[in-house]
Amino acid sequence: MQVVIHISLKDGVLDPEGRAIGHSLASLGFDDANSVRVGKNITLDIDTDDASRAHQRAARMCEVLLANTVIEDYEIEVIEES
Amino acid sequence: MQVVIHISLKDGVLDPEGRAIGHSLASLGFDDANSVRVGKNITLDIDTDDASRAHQRAARMCEVLLANTVIEDYEIEVIEES
Repeated sequence: MQVVIHISLKDGVLDPEGRAIGHSLASLGFDDANSVRVGKNITLDIDTDDASRAHQRAARMCEVLLANTVIEDYEIEVIEES
Repeated sequence: MQVVIHISLKDGVLDPEGRAIGHSLASLGFDDANSVRVGKNITLDIDTDDASRAHQRAARMCEVLLANTVIEDYEIEVIEES
């Protein structure tokens, strides 16, 4: 089952990469772009047909390795095969 | 208008970061995780109330700066305020 994990910095945590992108956009003439924030998404397959188990495994992976839960939030999206 | 841009490596492009995460997961006992791919998402506000214009501006930003279109695909999601 395919799972997409979206990892983003918590509100209030400084995002230097986002700020740098914002500056670059402005200097290229995109001065209508504001509040740029950068996050990560991790796509993976988990060997199970049970969506709730896939969700639970992905959450465990985030807690243990993928996200730094002090400064990052994560969101898990399980892609149901149709 | 808030826009989320999802940037991911094209299929077939080697993803060393994803591979490293896959190895780390396996060594932590998550041997049910496969095909790990890592992408980026960029959230920004664009000064317009017109969703199609926001989409068009975001696409232009991707082409000019945000994505490396030789090896990366991008997907634009305009968040309509409700």
